[in-house]
Amino acid sequence: MYVILVYDLEAERTYKALKLGRRYLTHVQNSVLEGEISEGDLQKLRGELEELLKPGESAILYELSSDTLVNRSVYGEDPTKDQRFL
Amino acid sequence: MYVILVYDLEAERTYKALKLGRRYLTHVQNSVLEGEISEGDLQKLRGELEELLKPGESAILYELSSDTLVNRSVYGEDPTKDQRFL
Repeated sequence: MYVILVYDLEAERTYKALKLGRRYLTHVQNSVLEGEISEGDLQKLRGELEELLKPGESAILYELSSDTLVNRSVYGEDPTKDQRFL
Repeated sequence: MYVILVYDLEAERTYKALKLGRRYLTHVQNSVLEGEISEGDLQKLRGELEELLKPGESAILYELSSDTLVNRSVYGEDPTKDQRFL
């Protein structure tokens, strides 16, 4: 399946969510990752997210059965074209 | 249709994207809004986003034909339960 992950952690802890997310997904914007993921990896990601988050922090996981169900448009500069995102 | 909007603007300008997005969608996390939107309003939102963004800033718009196509899970504290999001 295809998932979109958006997270909101304390500023000095955001790198932890990014590091976790990158093990499974592609970083597409500041606090957003997306990509194809297996059911097994999704279960792992869910567990690791729950473990990572502290009070006041959150993450939203949108699951789609396929990325063909979503039409994706980027406005402004596409951050994935920025070297920092490679 | 149902859309998810994530934006990444310069810190002192994020309120502008939030203000714009809120005219059409519901604020669900720090830089994330979502909701049902008409084709007409979506066209307006697209135009306004393009006008708003400065170099280095971006917004991603995920369009779904229906919110039933997406399974949404929130980890940590659901920010929409926070008064700041009302």
